[in-house]
Amino acid sequence: MLNRVAVAPSGFKESLSAEAAADAIAEGVRRVLPDAEVDLIPLVDGGEGTAAALAAATGGRLVPRIATGPVGAPVDTHFALIGSHGPATTTAETAVVEMAAVAGLSLVPHTLRDPGATTTYGVGELIRAALDTGVRRILVGCGDSGTSDGGAGALQALGARLLDADGVELPPGGGELPRLRRVDPSGLDPRLADVELLVACNPFNVLCGERGVARVFGPQKGATPERVEELSAGLENWARVLTRDLAPPRTDLRTGPGTGASGGLGAGLAALGARLLPRFEVLLGHLDLDARLARADLVITAEGALDHQTPRGKVPAEVARRAKLHGRPVLALAGTLGEGAHQVPGVDAYTGILPAPMALAEALVRAHELLTDATERALRMIVLGARVTAGTAGTAGTNGAVSAVQTAGAVQTAGTQRPSSVR
Amino acid sequence: MLNRVAVAPSGFKESLSAEAAADAIAEGVRRVLPDAEVDLIPLVDGGEGTAAALAAATGGRLVPRIATGPVGAPVDTHFALIGSHGPATTTAETAVVEMAAVAGLSLVPHTLRDPGATTTYGVGELIRAALDTGVRRILVGCGDSGTSDGGAGALQALGARLLDADGVELPPGGGELPRLRRVDPSGLDPRLADVELLVACNPFNVLCGERGVARVFGPQKGATPERVEELSAGLENWARVLTRDLAPPRTDLRTGPGTGASGGLGAGLAALGARLLPRFEVLLGHLDLDARLARADLVITAEGALDHQTPRGKVPAEVARRAKLHGRPVLALAGTLGEGAHQVPGVDAYTGILPAPMALAEALVRAHELLTDATERALRMIVLGARVTAGTAGTAGTNGAVSAVQTAGAVQTAGTQRPSSVR
Repeated sequence: MLNRVAVAPSGFKESLSAEAAADAIAEGVRRVLPDAEVDLIPLVDGGEGTAAALAAATGGRLVPRIATGPVGAPVDTHFALIGSHGPATTTAETAVVEMAAVAGLSLVPHTLRDPGATTTYGVGELIRAALDTGVRRILVGCGDSGTSDGGAGALQALGARLLDADGVELPPGGGELPRLRRVDPSGLDPRLADVELLVACNPFNVLCGERGVARVFGPQKGATPERVEELSAGLENWARVLTRDLAPPRTDLRTGPGTGASGGLGAGLAALGARLLPRFEVLLGHLDLDARLARADLVITAEGALDHQTPRGKVPAEVARRAKLHGRPVLALAGTLGEGAHQVPGVDAYTGILPAPMALAEALVRAHELLTDATERALRMIVLGARVTAGTAGTAGTNGAVSAVQTAGAVQTAGTQRPSSVR
Repeated sequence: MLNRVAVAPSGFKESLSAEAAADAIAEGVRRVLPDAEVDLIPLVDGGEGTAAALAAATGGRLVPRIATGPVGAPVDTHFALIGSHGPATTTAETAVVEMAAVAGLSLVPHTLRDPGATTTYGVGELIRAALDTGVRRILVGCGDSGTSDGGAGALQALGARLLDADGVELPPGGGELPRLRRVDPSGLDPRLADVELLVACNPFNVLCGERGVARVFGPQKGATPERVEELSAGLENWARVLTRDLAPPRTDLRTGPGTGASGGLGAGLAALGARLLPRFEVLLGHLDLDARLARADLVITAEGALDHQTPRGKVPAEVARRAKLHGRPVLALAGTLGEGAHQVPGVDAYTGILPAPMALAEALVRAHELLTDATERALRMIVLGARVTAGTAGTAGTNGAVSAVQTAGAVQTAGTQRPSSVR
């Protein structure tokens, strides 16, 4: 009955990539169910690792570049060219620009964490580099940003001029946006008109208002309360000027879904005509996710945290939603269980990974081992449940993997015909 | 299939009594299985809370006393008189002296934690107080001690004289035992001859040798490495002199099972003719444990830690052993999972209780809430396992208690003839 397990985790921020998380979980599954078929589906959310993961999943490649980093110094970065593998219908001639790879928070030294000063200039440079390759479509992945400039830097790199009351071009950083009076689009790269620009973003992130991006994410990027208000006012002004000076976009730049993505990069690109799309819709088609979940007897997902934010567009909520379309049971693992962890729609059971009191720093370093062990424990509980139901309670002396396998074996034998595959 | 759940935890040291742990677990069970019958069986191991728990379970009472504490200052303490309730055949006329209540580690201020200086004198005083009541049997509960005097203080309180080479009586503390030359038993309380003296102890604890009590437990009671060696030598001398000067006991005082209990109190009382008994055999009969485990569809046990020490006579191992005699599945919960947690015989599945990185101090304060939440998570995993087996995967939107109950219900209906219940 547990013949096929789909392992579809997100990465664990600051500790495990999605690939590493999937490997760790798979190891735990195999300790309890050594004969189960484990389908590894490391998931991307547009943030760190997205370009590399999509290149790998489609047989594409990464194109290395040097570009302007979030604090102005050049950084080694890359964009991806999607290959022809996989189920997505139009994968060829598509480039993936991952904003985190050139303007991500991890590229901002801790001593320089002021989202009023960081820039998305490098994102614009990467888009130009992608245009140089002749692709027909550019997909910009949002997430894990260290900026709050509304994409102003990206627009400047693409040729737009952002002018103050004296007609002088603004320096980098969202902190300058309150002084913006006019955007001159005449110098924009003309090739933008011939390319499809898509932005993969969390639709719950909006540019302005009470849940605007500066208020929700500014503090974790290093903004003081005063800076948050300044950034909010700047982004309001940014939306107003963009809407007036560029061709009116399809999207309400202030509160449209995804306008707040990556410090407002969504809004800036939308003003250029980009379509803001829910990140999982545009990203997961490359991974054949739905068909793979549908084949699983159990779906395991994971993320660094499971809490009230999870249903607002996080990987475990998306996996659970899709798994439930096929009636699949879902287990979620997380490093931190916060408020709301118990009510993520579609998640049937969930658990933390910590075996003992420990500091976050230790947990981050030991994440792989902790995730594997926690998966083993969870699977043993699930197998125990199967045993209770089946009425085959353990006999004296049995425990651990062997007993779990015996139990699973008994269940399998009663079910489909795989007697020989067990033990 | 999950109609009856037996909840049989130990206490969690420094945070939850066994009763509180049982309540916390029961609350978590009811969140997932509101209709299940939950049987609360808080367990005692001879240490802290044993006297009170046995008095409560048998309808007996506590007798308050003031006696000499482990560092010499008087402490408010008590012993118990067993009542007539419950299944044990000879409960009446039995007193329970809990050594932890008068010489426990928690009665030793942190600044005075030197097991070479602490004394079991108060244990002897409580035994005399119990003799005053005219009971026929005295059960001494060991565990959670703050002493390492081999029971020397207790013997002095009961009238024995411990003499050095000059014929001068030794002052209190295991650190004095290397100087012991002779024990004069002529002043021992004569009523000891007419009472049955039983000691409930962990049989894995022995007085001397490589795994002797000073080496295994001395450090956690505050002994330096030098002090450990001194205490070991003192206990060797103690065993030698006791064996020579008192009537030869039934037990090898150096390495007999339980001689190391409570810093060697087991050996000292054995020299008076006491029988050292495995603590669970002598304690759990009062709780009708076996019959209650046999009736359960699932047994949940718990302790502060689950590790390589657990099989050496800890509550979860004992519960698991007895549950397996009846073929019952066992889940163990623990605040800390250490090395060896995955191989406790009879434990089918286990989990920690921590939802997020946190310090031990916070975990201790929040233990009740953490244990309840962890139980809920574990039960959800078990119910998920039942669902996978039963082939009734969740439908869109279901989660939490309601879905769990529905699943349990479905499983129950499928009953014991389960071909059709397996997909």
